[in-house]
Amino acid sequence: MNDLLDKLCRSDRRALARAMSQVDSAGRTDPELEVHLRRATGQVPWWGFTGPPGVGKSTLIDALLQRLREKQRRIGVVAVDPSSRRSNGALLGDRVRMMRHAVDADVFIRSLATHRHEGGLSDATLHCARLLELAGYDPVLIETVGVGQNEVEIAAVADLCVVMLGPGYGDEIQLIKAGLLEIADIVVVNKCDLPESDRLLNEVREELAGTARARDVRQSAPGEEGSPEEDTPDAAGGVAVMGIEAKTGRGVEELLDRLLAMDRAHRTADAQASRDRRRVLGELRRRATSVCEQALDGALSGEEAKRWIDRLSRGDASLDAIVAELTAAALNEVKKRGQNYFSCKK
Amino acid sequence: MNDLLDKLCRSDRRALARAMSQVDSAGRTDPELEVHLRRATGQVPWWGFTGPPGVGKSTLIDALLQRLREKQRRIGVVAVDPSSRRSNGALLGDRVRMMRHAVDADVFIRSLATHRHEGGLSDATLHCARLLELAGYDPVLIETVGVGQNEVEIAAVADLCVVMLGPGYGDEIQLIKAGLLEIADIVVVNKCDLPESDRLLNEVREELAGTARARDVRQSAPGEEGSPEEDTPDAAGGVAVMGIEAKTGRGVEELLDRLLAMDRAHRTADAQASRDRRRVLGELRRRATSVCEQALDGALSGEEAKRWIDRLSRGDASLDAIVAELTAAALNEVKKRGQNYFSCKK
Repeated sequence: MNDLLDKLCRSDRRALARAMSQVDSAGRTDPELEVHLRRATGQVPWWGFTGPPGVGKSTLIDALLQRLREKQRRIGVVAVDPSSRRSNGALLGDRVRMMRHAVDADVFIRSLATHRHEGGLSDATLHCARLLELAGYDPVLIETVGVGQNEVEIAAVADLCVVMLGPGYGDEIQLIKAGLLEIADIVVVNKCDLPESDRLLNEVREELAGTARARDVRQSAPGEEGSPEEDTPDAAGGVAVMGIEAKTGRGVEELLDRLLAMDRAHRTADAQASRDRRRVLGELRRRATSVCEQALDGALSGEEAKRWIDRLSRGDASLDAIVAELTAAALNEVKKRGQNYFSCKK
Repeated sequence: MNDLLDKLCRSDRRALARAMSQVDSAGRTDPELEVHLRRATGQVPWWGFTGPPGVGKSTLIDALLQRLREKQRRIGVVAVDPSSRRSNGALLGDRVRMMRHAVDADVFIRSLATHRHEGGLSDATLHCARLLELAGYDPVLIETVGVGQNEVEIAAVADLCVVMLGPGYGDEIQLIKAGLLEIADIVVVNKCDLPESDRLLNEVREELAGTARARDVRQSAPGEEGSPEEDTPDAAGGVAVMGIEAKTGRGVEELLDRLLAMDRAHRTADAQASRDRRRVLGELRRRATSVCEQALDGALSGEEAKRWIDRLSRGDASLDAIVAELTAAALNEVKKRGQNYFSCKK
């Protein structure tokens, strides 16, 4: 273990890649390494990037990587791809472009495929980001498609959230936008060369100005005091709104300046303590939920399940009564097996 | 209750709207009504429509509604919108266009906003679709954005799945596409007037032909025997692939013919029995998961939670050990309150 830790701290790429693969396949690290990771990390704020499919997240990150390298920063990237067993390991064109930085020893990019039933961002994301932080990468960037649950989860994991929007998604984007704005620290409207993007910029500003920000996810950690608010001319409700053109790099410098300023504000001891609490709380909730789901699935694939379904279909019992039986059966199973329940699972 | 049931069966729009609002706000129906709904429905196959944001799902449904009306069918639509508290009740332009059918007494459209922490499709979707079926609407259409968990969930709820794709989403769509193809009965490529859509059509056909379909979700119901396979020239791996232009209606007639043929194949007693089992199993799993999550959140907001977090942060206990304590606490809570746990929740 000491040997591995030593290699990781020295940013040994092979050791890092191996540790990440283990995390990716098993969804967790060696418990000893996990304890160490939890203790040794938390100083570095993580930057989250989210937005609808195809909006240009990888292109933006590519542009940011280039500029961060010019500032001699060593950058770690965790790119979380939408779930599919089939696409595991697939590399996309956009991603490939970003990967040109991967030959640079001071950039480490890891692509993670989320596994279906685990929800959008798994604990693997958290562990990979911690591994990158341990290996001295700073900042650590996390990219994910922002629709559905992912948006809630990236807000829980990342310290700064960049929400990226762009014109050309039809009306449906309105609803997705509303969900994304709730978690944004910075809203970036891409393709600001297109006239429609001006309308989008205005819509975003109006929406942000009109509503107080709902930040339930972050506030759920006890003792959490929220992120520092900035009030600059282009900020609406404390959220910065910026037009950029990721492909040409227009506006990227200004975005980076702002990100770096927010990053600095997150490096206080208080910010770290609240970040640690939030991360641990999220881990606990996710792991316990996953244990419960496994236990429920176990109970639902057993003999009793047929009787439950029959009683329900015949109207002999209410759904609540059956759910009470099912939950008790599942949680008892967890209790009976105790810690064995966990160690026997991959 | 009899009065309400009578009104619902007579397709009284006000009673239907009221029952749906109750479902939407409370996430459930009156238990007595629920038992009745479960017994009285299952004959009508539900058609699911999913695809990335802005691909044209509402426009397609609008076109299908018009043609189904010409065939004297009475159609129910449940449109599930991505989560946001802010957007609750918002009506989109696309949706508004579709809503022109809502003045037609033989079309009933209900828009449902998914609530964040409940995942993509909530039980409300199931109940609303059942209410529509009880009220004599046939077919029942369910529309949702297909990214992340929604795609798995619509496959579990709907009997036929139409997956809609279109050109212009960048490379990221590749991964989303892969996830969507796993659940598709019919793949529809929109905007077939654009040259890029030909490439997309070919990609979809190749991908479907090359891989056996993974249908875990549907196969998870015990005794499930899968949907009837068709093997026509434009079907790849049993999945039909069709180019359409939703806006002009090109190809919509052919799509509808195919949907109606598949719909007929799902009207056997066997198909109904397996559908009933699958739906009940899904309901049980979702409700029990939500009970577990509530119990976990309860435990995590209590006094003990601070000690758990401290022990973890100090490295005094492993995550698994704390998760075992947390799940045990949640179990005690569920047990103590028994069925009251359910009835006291909104």
